[in-house]
Amino acid sequence: MDISRLLATRAQFISASEVRELLKWATADVISFGGGLPDPSTFPIEDMKKVVEHVLEAYPHKALQYGPTEGIIELRQEIAKFSAHSGIVANPENVIITVGSQEALELLGRVFINPGDVIITENPTYIAALQAWRVYQPRLIGVPIDENGMIVEILEEKIKRLTTEGAKIKFIYTIPTAQNPSGVTMSQDRRKYLLELVERYDLVAVEDDPYSYFLFESINVTPLKALDKTNRVIYLSTASKIFAPGLRLGWAIANEDVIKWFNLAKQSLNLNTSNFAQYVFLEGLRRNIVLKNLPHVRDLYKRKRDAMLAALETYMPPGIEWTRPSGGMFIWVTAPSEIDTKELLKYAVTQYKVAFIPGHGFFVDQSVKNAMRLNFTYPTFEQIHEGIRRLSMALRERYDSTR
Amino acid sequence: MDISRLLATRAQFISASEVRELLKWATADVISFGGGLPDPSTFPIEDMKKVVEHVLEAYPHKALQYGPTEGIIELRQEIAKFSAHSGIVANPENVIITVGSQEALELLGRVFINPGDVIITENPTYIAALQAWRVYQPRLIGVPIDENGMIVEILEEKIKRLTTEGAKIKFIYTIPTAQNPSGVTMSQDRRKYLLELVERYDLVAVEDDPYSYFLFESINVTPLKALDKTNRVIYLSTASKIFAPGLRLGWAIANEDVIKWFNLAKQSLNLNTSNFAQYVFLEGLRRNIVLKNLPHVRDLYKRKRDAMLAALETYMPPGIEWTRPSGGMFIWVTAPSEIDTKELLKYAVTQYKVAFIPGHGFFVDQSVKNAMRLNFTYPTFEQIHEGIRRLSMALRERYDSTR
Repeated sequence: MDISRLLATRAQFISASEVRELLKWATADVISFGGGLPDPSTFPIEDMKKVVEHVLEAYPHKALQYGPTEGIIELRQEIAKFSAHSGIVANPENVIITVGSQEALELLGRVFINPGDVIITENPTYIAALQAWRVYQPRLIGVPIDENGMIVEILEEKIKRLTTEGAKIKFIYTIPTAQNPSGVTMSQDRRKYLLELVERYDLVAVEDDPYSYFLFESINVTPLKALDKTNRVIYLSTASKIFAPGLRLGWAIANEDVIKWFNLAKQSLNLNTSNFAQYVFLEGLRRNIVLKNLPHVRDLYKRKRDAMLAALETYMPPGIEWTRPSGGMFIWVTAPSEIDTKELLKYAVTQYKVAFIPGHGFFVDQSVKNAMRLNFTYPTFEQIHEGIRRLSMALRERYDSTR
Repeated sequence: MDISRLLATRAQFISASEVRELLKWATADVISFGGGLPDPSTFPIEDMKKVVEHVLEAYPHKALQYGPTEGIIELRQEIAKFSAHSGIVANPENVIITVGSQEALELLGRVFINPGDVIITENPTYIAALQAWRVYQPRLIGVPIDENGMIVEILEEKIKRLTTEGAKIKFIYTIPTAQNPSGVTMSQDRRKYLLELVERYDLVAVEDDPYSYFLFESINVTPLKALDKTNRVIYLSTASKIFAPGLRLGWAIANEDVIKWFNLAKQSLNLNTSNFAQYVFLEGLRRNIVLKNLPHVRDLYKRKRDAMLAALETYMPPGIEWTRPSGGMFIWVTAPSEIDTKELLKYAVTQYKVAFIPGHGFFVDQSVKNAMRLNFTYPTFEQIHEGIRRLSMALRERYDSTR
């Protein structure tokens, strides 16, 4: 039977994630710079074995049962404590555990966005956040970035204009540290200024922070949330990059009203996040496995970043530019304007067996067509070298064919 | 800061789950007949230890990594195989793994429901399904049930009238086996007739089936999905009742188009269900832990049902009626019409330390105010006895006070 006539009108705003589509290729003989996957060698498997054994020994009945929607109290306490390392002051009542931080992005859309409401983001920004919100039909306003992150002067202009227009600004979304996709980190001064704007204009900021444990340079910044005196920052983070994505655990830290609404909205989505995964992560934090593991992971990712930068330097033709990311998992590459990277992708995959994410989807209006995001954490050093060599060949050929 | 002015209009349709609120009480000194929690003694902990150890030994890099949105192929294959025991014919392409079957309920709303679309359900029906859909503002049409399940003749009348009106019927939702909250099982004849109606009127049926492994009487029925020759049934089930809710694993079986849309919609919700949980359940199925464990669980729950029925018989005052459930986890109690069970609940909890779910929320229009749902699987035998004794005292007192 044909189900298309039964679809809700919102289905037109539900689009396939190019990142997800690419994950499928990652298993084949294609070298993928696509998804944001951790290097599996960083998973603390031996520690995890002990932890899991302990969880099933010490509290099996709780770990295998349903639990409260907001998450188990022990983990919410431990996350409040963990966040204090970054200067964030939070009580368990300020914490909700989510199914990856993707679920927190969905909750933001569900709780806050009416059609036409304004969401302000860095431009480019995280593709899956834009996708999660598009189903709620916001008006997306992008603010350009430079090497110090979101250009807050332009943000201010936009806020002023939007306020004059009477637009409803629901929140400002930023990934201030090792931004996805650009890798840039917002300077401390800009962070302070952004918060000043948020207060002056009575706004809310969403700080998405999966990467602050992976800064490769010594940059002196604090989370926005640590500077947030008026409780206007909704802070998101995840166990996916510092422990293991396979648990699907993230969390939000925010004022109690926001947590209350997230809690209500989450009930319908999945009742609660896996108790078992929560207890495993709880023990991972308590036993200091996460922090103990980090220096090694950071060092590995820094070396992988450097390997990719070196390969780009070696192989890329003139006219190609790329960022030198301060941290995180990605290098952002800009090709000459003649190159449409969606078309390049098809060519690169079929002819050269190398994949990446075209940049289009990272822009609020999808207007930039010559950029691409390269992940350097998942591929091996050999794949990084070989993949960049292949990609540069594909680029040269496509570029020649456009002239 | 006050976030209420930032809320989306849909927030008014996001309501607190009474079941969830009650879960909070379950830990205190209140005897709770509230949530639908399994007896923790049924969790196969020793087997689980071996399984988890094996998963971290045999494929740690896959289990701890991100995965495909639709779920790992091995589990989708295994679930297709597992479903064949009930006569369901499915390929892995017909299966999607969800974060509990609650997520499948959300996906149904998200993919299919426009404001004003018609959803037909048994009346009463599963409270959390109604809650999940209310945010999408459907027109909910209830069909009464008797001891043989949904009265399909009334269903037919309603479909005819709605079709004449030009209403858009998106799906018929049924829990045909050991229905929640009533415990009744739809007869095989009615199942066939329901499917005939679905075909004749070009409709879709959603079969929610968490309980068919917990039938206490020998009733000869097959899932609707096993009778579904034209691929119009979307079948939902879960590992929560047959393995462990703590993994938050459910699945849907449907035609490939439906699975494709669920997959797209799920990407924004949480990218994918925990790979770790999926591998654990995969091994649980492969090692036959699930089926091996079932006779014991079924026997325990049957004895708990019987204990609750006996306690009701012993203690309840005249004028109180209850179902004798054919399976599942709940007894449905109807008090005299003067009793509002929401008010009774407050009284019962504060004065007698016993909790249940008031029936209101299980009805599409919340019109019935004198019913309640009692769970018999989670409390101990002693708590069942004592809790029903307390509840009957609360009922007697409230009933006296209404006269």
